[in-house]
Amino acid sequence: MIYLDNAATTYPKPECVYQALDNANRNLAFNAGRGSYPEAKQVADLIQETRNKVAALVSANGDTVSFESSATEALNIIINGLDMNSGDNVYISPFEHNAVVRPLHQLKQEKGINIRILPFDKTTWEVDEEKMNNMFALNKPKACFLSHISNVTGYILPSEKIFEKTKEYNAINVLDCSQSLGVLNPLKENTDFIVFAGHKSLYASFGIAGFINLTNHNLKITKSGGTGSDSLNPEMPERGYGRYEAGSLNSVATAGLNASLDWLKQTPVYEHEKKLTEYLIEQLNTLDNVQLYLPENKSSILGIVSIAINGYSSSDAGTILSEDFSINVRTGYHCAPYVHEFIGSLDTSGTVRISIGAFTEKAEIDQLINGIMDMR
Amino acid sequence: MIYLDNAATTYPKPECVYQALDNANRNLAFNAGRGSYPEAKQVADLIQETRNKVAALVSANGDTVSFESSATEALNIIINGLDMNSGDNVYISPFEHNAVVRPLHQLKQEKGINIRILPFDKTTWEVDEEKMNNMFALNKPKACFLSHISNVTGYILPSEKIFEKTKEYNAINVLDCSQSLGVLNPLKENTDFIVFAGHKSLYASFGIAGFINLTNHNLKITKSGGTGSDSLNPEMPERGYGRYEAGSLNSVATAGLNASLDWLKQTPVYEHEKKLTEYLIEQLNTLDNVQLYLPENKSSILGIVSIAINGYSSSDAGTILSEDFSINVRTGYHCAPYVHEFIGSLDTSGTVRISIGAFTEKAEIDQLINGIMDMR
Repeated sequence: MIYLDNAATTYPKPECVYQALDNANRNLAFNAGRGSYPEAKQVADLIQETRNKVAALVSANGDTVSFESSATEALNIIINGLDMNSGDNVYISPFEHNAVVRPLHQLKQEKGINIRILPFDKTTWEVDEEKMNNMFALNKPKACFLSHISNVTGYILPSEKIFEKTKEYNAINVLDCSQSLGVLNPLKENTDFIVFAGHKSLYASFGIAGFINLTNHNLKITKSGGTGSDSLNPEMPERGYGRYEAGSLNSVATAGLNASLDWLKQTPVYEHEKKLTEYLIEQLNTLDNVQLYLPENKSSILGIVSIAINGYSSSDAGTILSEDFSINVRTGYHCAPYVHEFIGSLDTSGTVRISIGAFTEKAEIDQLINGIMDMR
Repeated sequence: MIYLDNAATTYPKPECVYQALDNANRNLAFNAGRGSYPEAKQVADLIQETRNKVAALVSANGDTVSFESSATEALNIIINGLDMNSGDNVYISPFEHNAVVRPLHQLKQEKGINIRILPFDKTTWEVDEEKMNNMFALNKPKACFLSHISNVTGYILPSEKIFEKTKEYNAINVLDCSQSLGVLNPLKENTDFIVFAGHKSLYASFGIAGFINLTNHNLKITKSGGTGSDSLNPEMPERGYGRYEAGSLNSVATAGLNASLDWLKQTPVYEHEKKLTEYLIEQLNTLDNVQLYLPENKSSILGIVSIAINGYSSSDAGTILSEDFSINVRTGYHCAPYVHEFIGSLDTSGTVRISIGAFTEKAEIDQLINGIMDMR
């Protein structure tokens, strides 16, 4: 099996992560901070150490990190926890995932916020700064949500440039790093929240994700429950990461993330993915039956390439690649509702998405290319 | 180490669960339903099979099961998803956990609901039916939340009797089975939602929990995101378990739950816990420096016993048991805010909670008893 669906979840994980998970299941699966015995304290220490390591990726303090079960949950906690009122303008890019779009749509229905899509040029994929500035002047941004890397196209968004501008309006800037943190770390300037998904670019397991609350923003509570402390108080803690961590923390998945963060430090995953992405694009460009969804500047793509194969709907193409060549790609809309109109992939019912990872080999790309060549 | 904190999380898990988790991490950690290749389908099948097995515990259909990352999350989705308005009466028992109390308190602040505590007798721990009926007649119940087994006292609540009565008012009845499902399964009569926690009485890992939506109640959406289907639609699915499952499902933790459910079928955990609980109470009763928090009828206690040790605050007692005898119990309020006034454990800053599990041995109880005896 050739696995080219790393944008859905990276696979495989480093051996050290498997071992850390098995060890934690057997020896560390305790409820942290909810017991006074040494094993519970050991788990609490492990969790704090992992907070510190996550935060270090963007030179932040460990206490800014709240762990959640998924990036989707983290985004819901942020979006529903912001102080939003009727008429507020929330800006997003056309590349955003439903983990951002659907909660915002819900807020639009309930509170009457406006969701405004930033003006990206369909050829260059650059943001049109003049148009953007005009939009902001006309409709002041209250918040801005951007993917660091698009989960459909692998495009590294010009988030720094956009956040610099939205910050002039004191907007709250949220960067969804589900596809990047650990491999490509963003700058934290002008950013309020960074969202991460353990099981994606961080090479850990399902069950651990969260957000870095860089500006110590106090969110309204939308998920509450036991925190193992101050039990007689019917309210969640007023401040700090614990405010957003109701229920037992997944100490096992945290142990896996702790191990994967060490591994990422020693492994040039970015360089590997960068080189392979370039090779993949180069090889795909030699094929006459493939349309690539790319911006003018191909160096702004990392890890993910979306294509159409002439004569096939995306799902038929995926089925053939899987059945005839044991190549696993993902096909369809990839939970991103606006990008397909932007890149022009509505006619093929979405794209064939090829996403590579730390363990993808050049020979696997070659086999993919041979497979697609056979589909002429 | 003698582990008597199984109410926080059961430990250890059966060997087959560890193996299923390791195998799933290595071979099944794919994103279900988000790819068309065989491995993604295999994961989707595993998840459906696990839904069926969970539902079978209460003779329900697998499609009523929504998986969430924790029982806390499941309870938040239910509580915040119900149609609640100012003046609505929500009844709870004095035994409820903060995973119920805190979200309800939040609703009280935001929407003006009334939280009413059911009249339980402090000696018998039985519900006073006459008082209860009068309360209901005066303030019609809109919803009722009960723990099946109290996480502080091990008390099996008379939920059937109460739900029968609240149902006469068409109340929505929610049974929190975090401490019971898998070991002691409730009847489903008059029950709308059953909440479960994989890492507790179900002997699976952290990261898998959920609810059984027995009456196909349509909850308002409070968590949304990608569902791997219908991506161009900004709304969550209108019906079915997928409506409440935003983001990647934890396929690995699901595989662990699948294995633990098979193991539970072949293992008389209830009988073991029942016998050991009786033995524990009997032995504790021989000590003259211990106060037990028990109802008149001791047969309504399963797996958990809360005590006070004369001359010690609960946390000091826990520290001594841990440091001098390597016995891990939990001390304090156990995330349950109202039960301590009810049982009278506020003066000792909560209780020393002893909670046994499938792997607890009689000899471990004996060592605990010796330890407590030494504390005279």
